[in-house]
Amino acid sequence: MADIIEGRNPVIEALKSSRPINKILLTHDTRQHSAVTEILRLSQARRIPIEYVTRDVIDRLSTTAVHQGVIAYAAVREYVTLGDLLAISEERNEPPLYCILDGIEDPQNLGAIIRTADASGVHGVIVPSRRAVGLTAGVAKASAGAVEYVPVARVSNLSQAIETLKKSNVWVIGIDPAGKSDYTKIDFSLPTAIVIGSEGRGLSYLVKKRCDYLASIPMRGKITSLNASVAAALVMYEAFRQRKW
Amino acid sequence: MADIIEGRNPVIEALKSSRPINKILLTHDTRQHSAVTEILRLSQARRIPIEYVTRDVIDRLSTTAVHQGVIAYAAVREYVTLGDLLAISEERNEPPLYCILDGIEDPQNLGAIIRTADASGVHGVIVPSRRAVGLTAGVAKASAGAVEYVPVARVSNLSQAIETLKKSNVWVIGIDPAGKSDYTKIDFSLPTAIVIGSEGRGLSYLVKKRCDYLASIPMRGKITSLNASVAAALVMYEAFRQRKW
Repeated sequence: MADIIEGRNPVIEALKSSRPINKILLTHDTRQHSAVTEILRLSQARRIPIEYVTRDVIDRLSTTAVHQGVIAYAAVREYVTLGDLLAISEERNEPPLYCILDGIEDPQNLGAIIRTADASGVHGVIVPSRRAVGLTAGVAKASAGAVEYVPVARVSNLSQAIETLKKSNVWVIGIDPAGKSDYTKIDFSLPTAIVIGSEGRGLSYLVKKRCDYLASIPMRGKITSLNASVAAALVMYEAFRQRKW
Repeated sequence: MADIIEGRNPVIEALKSSRPINKILLTHDTRQHSAVTEILRLSQARRIPIEYVTRDVIDRLSTTAVHQGVIAYAAVREYVTLGDLLAISEERNEPPLYCILDGIEDPQNLGAIIRTADASGVHGVIVPSRRAVGLTAGVAKASAGAVEYVPVARVSNLSQAIETLKKSNVWVIGIDPAGKSDYTKIDFSLPTAIVIGSEGRGLSYLVKKRCDYLASIPMRGKITSLNASVAAALVMYEAFRQRKW
């Protein structure tokens, strides 16, 4: 499946067909066009993020040169909602176990995390719709196919999503060097969402503030952080181990 | 530092300066040249692997077009010997803890493994000199700088290296789906070398046969293997945990 859909009508058709889409890029000068108004309306209804860019950005991405100032990034699989994730946990008859990713940008990392989520029985992954990589072909490849099995919820506001989870009695555990106890001391038999920070910046201030608890991963070397997919794997596997593999 | 050194004399100088080198590529038609004989002699003395390739392979890699059929890949750091690793463990006054990589080819994976080795107190990493990525600039970047702190031994024959470790009373634990007990049941307080297989093929037959013990990583999903750097991290961190972090 092509990763990029170009031109006003192809993008409108993709939007109408409910084909999964990561985001849409528009040039500023196309805003007045009626087809673009339609694209904006359909995107809003499907909560697909829009990014305004300069024409040369789209020129560079385009492979057909008939983009008309509009490009859509197709996703390899449809995203689910938070509600879907909660329903999945109920169906499985297990206390919820989710992995929230606060801005992972590297497709290799997202793919590896989804692959480990499948292996460790995590019910679903939650990602923000902006400033983070979506379900691209590169992510699917790095996941070794696990994108087919692990539901991914994409939310426009992570802090809000965390509040929703808390209201459903899910404990939200942020992984952060400031965490006072180490992650193996957390009781993962309870309904839990593990929050992993982005590659460069770790957990964002607002997300960190909303976590119920911060836990750290002990480190004894000179480097001060682990690769994001490694950090996520250590915590997901600790939860798996406690839930009796 | 440039990753590639091109041309007969630059490569000879790099070899004489004991600058770290991952491998040397030669075209078949240069074999008779006296400078090439010198390159072969110096490489052999320093145990640097030689690969014979066709001229168009070198043409594609060359950035100067004056390669004269010879290209050397510089390493970002000097490799150590197995003996060095054993001495490091003794100096630290800790039972040895090593990570042997049976053919990791992805620089991202090797970098992430070296980064986790630093964090988890692994004394050193052991890699084969052929059919595996060496200490390239990409590996250094993916390691977040940990290549500066974690010694990497490069050996021409992994099976032989395993025998040497066993003679030094190091337990060699292969991580493999065929392992009867899971990796958390292994006693990592003993001198241990963890063996991780390659991305595509896992542990090779000869290496697997030489391991003292095979341990598996439990998986409950649909995908049958983990990312190599994730598998390595889970086992290294279990060892770190048992050794009382």
